Amino acid sequence: MPQGRPNVIPDDGLTTRQRRHQPLLAVHTGDGKGKSTAAFGLALRGWNQGWRIGVFQFVKSAKWRIGEQTVLERLGRLHEETGEGGPVEWHKMGSGWSWIRKEGSAEDHAAAAAEGWAEIKRRLADQTHDLLILDEFTYPLDWGWIDVGDVVSALAERPGRQHVVITGRRAHPRLVEAADLVTEMAKVKHPMDAGRKGQRGIEW
Amino acid sequence: MPQGRPNVIPDDGLTTRQRRHQPLLAVHTGDGKGKSTAAFGLALRGWNQGWRIGVFQFVKSAKWRIGEQTVLERLGRLHEETGEGGPVEWHKMGSGWSWIRKEGSAEDHAAAAAEGWAEIKRRLADQTHDLLILDEFTYPLDWGWIDVGDVVSALAERPGRQHVVITGRRAHPRLVEAADLVTEMAKVKHPMDAGRKGQRGIEW
Repeated sequence: MPQGRPNVIPDDGLTTRQRRHQPLLAVHTGDGKGKSTAAFGLALRGWNQGWRIGVFQFVKSAKWRIGEQTVLERLGRLHEETGEGGPVEWHKMGSGWSWIRKEGSAEDHAAAAAEGWAEIKRRLADQTHDLLILDEFTYPLDWGWIDVGDVVSALAERPGRQHVVITGRRAHPRLVEAADLVTEMAKVKHPMDAGRKGQRGIEW
Repeated sequence: MPQGRPNVIPDDGLTTRQRRHQPLLAVHTGDGKGKSTAAFGLALRGWNQGWRIGVFQFVKSAKWRIGEQTVLERLGRLHEETGEGGPVEWHKMGSGWSWIRKEGSAEDHAAAAAEGWAEIKRRLADQTHDLLILDEFTYPLDWGWIDVGDVVSALAERPGRQHVVITGRRAHPRLVEAADLVTEMAKVKHPMDAGRKGQRGIEW
């Protein structure tokens, strides 16, 4: 639930209203569950506001399909059919990046990640989406496939009012520094600790 | 992403498959954002599996309406219209509990919370839902409006395969002990610390 009273009133020359409507950079990190799930929950809210939603999944296998993709794409079609909510695009790294030529490059995960990020930068410049979810984006940064300095400056310079949510473990300190909102999802207890495997509807 | 290898193999006489399909009790707690949002993200997954979703919000004002309610109820209507996904019910404490007589009792928050819990117990016994989200349910427990022992035993004895997600700060230790999955959403950085108020699409 929102609370009306901020902790400090900054001396930034902005009105409360202007400050309130600044675009957010949020990071969901930590070893616990809920990082991506909470990001997709935010996409629900954004869709309800009529926002143009873009999800970019930096996952190993483009064949892996989670329930949220099916439902959010269904909501995107509902928007096309009835005008309710907003449009939804969902892209996956490698063969799932629809803008990558299929031959060759999708084999190379580092190159595929870099091509994904290059497209996201173009979309940020073009203000294609109102909410961008860069799911598991911390990993290609962690592995050095994408330069964190380039990411931080592209995000800092993004025009207009584009909200960005980045998920994944081990968020880079520069990303944390650049973010407006950082939540750490910490594992207190997990069924796998008790020998239970993931199950349909809960894990995907 | 699910990982296939549990940390231990328990000596409980169950097969991996049986163990995998045990119903989950999950708790999202901590001072950070994402507790409810991740629960509603799980509802997306469950809906996609055709699960019967029940959301019970233990909020102060039944007038407060978040975007997720609009979207999940829309998905519920989509189920009625097309058979896609599953049915969705969304109830709010007090005047939002559709099973409470409007006169009198809804004025008393503690009584309204107790009546809400009594109905949830009936539904657990009847196996009305496949996924129950008890949103901000930790507060009436924390305030002594609902007895934690009664909650823990009703959850332990719930029949069939009903997943339950409970959200809110200060989860009671007995609830944490009873849960299969506990995630603490910890605040690392929040825009209100920088004097920014909540905004539409992000906070609600």
